[in-house]
Amino acid sequence: MNGHAAKEGNGRGRGRRPADEVRADVLRTAGDLLLTEGIADLTFERVAKASGVSKTTLYKWWPSKGALALDGYFHAVRETLDFPDTGDVRADLLTQLRAFAHVMIHTPGGRVLAELIGESQTDQDLATAYRKLYSSHRRRLAAERLHRAQELGQIRTDIDVQVLVDQLWGAVYHRLLIPDEPVTDAFIVALVNNLLDGVRPK
Amino acid sequence: MNGHAAKEGNGRGRGRRPADEVRADVLRTAGDLLLTEGIADLTFERVAKASGVSKTTLYKWWPSKGALALDGYFHAVRETLDFPDTGDVRADLLTQLRAFAHVMIHTPGGRVLAELIGESQTDQDLATAYRKLYSSHRRRLAAERLHRAQELGQIRTDIDVQVLVDQLWGAVYHRLLIPDEPVTDAFIVALVNNLLDGVRPK
Repeated sequence: MNGHAAKEGNGRGRGRRPADEVRADVLRTAGDLLLTEGIADLTFERVAKASGVSKTTLYKWWPSKGALALDGYFHAVRETLDFPDTGDVRADLLTQLRAFAHVMIHTPGGRVLAELIGESQTDQDLATAYRKLYSSHRRRLAAERLHRAQELGQIRTDIDVQVLVDQLWGAVYHRLLIPDEPVTDAFIVALVNNLLDGVRPK
Repeated sequence: MNGHAAKEGNGRGRGRRPADEVRADVLRTAGDLLLTEGIADLTFERVAKASGVSKTTLYKWWPSKGALALDGYFHAVRETLDFPDTGDVRADLLTQLRAFAHVMIHTPGGRVLAELIGESQTDQDLATAYRKLYSSHRRRLAAERLHRAQELGQIRTDIDVQVLVDQLWGAVYHRLLIPDEPVTDAFIVALVNNLLDGVRPK
């Protein structure tokens, strides 16, 4: 971002690399670890070794394991959880929510987020990092897609799209964090239909 | 429940009392403590003293502080979070959700639940207690009210009311647990209107 050269090589003898590139490497390493093995195996030691960056630098960029995890996770899922725009908001929401549910249920990602949200209830620094490095960005991306649907007249302009974020993704988090009921495909479909069509008799 | 006489008095010299009555006393004591002071001050010691019941009996009925807290909390808020039935589902949902938001935001109840949900992400026993002693009962009560709205033709019968639970109360929990956005009255009103009316142009 700032264009300064990083002080470290990558352990493969190529010498100095731009900080942005080093940073991206670290985030990729952290994100890969999270999505394949979960958060227990994510240590500064391990990320330093795998990315060829000193622990000092890691701590300078990410003051805590939670911060590193959240930044790494955001970058790891960014592409998978992209918001498609085919012009059909119902189809696009279904596509995105299905991808989201898949990451939550079938990769260690769901556990990672649940544990970070859990810990952030009693750890103010982690709560701030969670919002700053993860949830506020995800909210913004979702809102951008929903605003485009408003511009096309598919969602009324008097609707506060941030409320829809809670009624779609927030509803999935609710089942993830308090698993009284399962996250099924029928659930995902119902989330979208209930909001677009309303639940009163037609 | 079982009609056996409890082995303890209430510390005020009235001798043996029915177990149900003793149990109700303990739950009231625990619930009052939670709603006025939060969970940090809830100890078996303190509840035993305040209710005149031995710690041994408390541990027999509630194997952990979490279990006692959840059972106490459920009973403490049961009346406040009752689901009114005036025959108008929109008005009744608004009334109930406003009462729910009030407890969550303006009493220590919200923090209590957030911390219990948080801890239950890494404590399986607490997660089970949470569902068994609190959330499953709340879900059932909400579903009963929504089913009556279906019987009156106010909500379509093909709607799975459990999904509505996630899109109404779950959405509030989402803002409580990840406070990117505040729980305002406009938010509560939007939750209900979005689902009853749908968000597409009319």
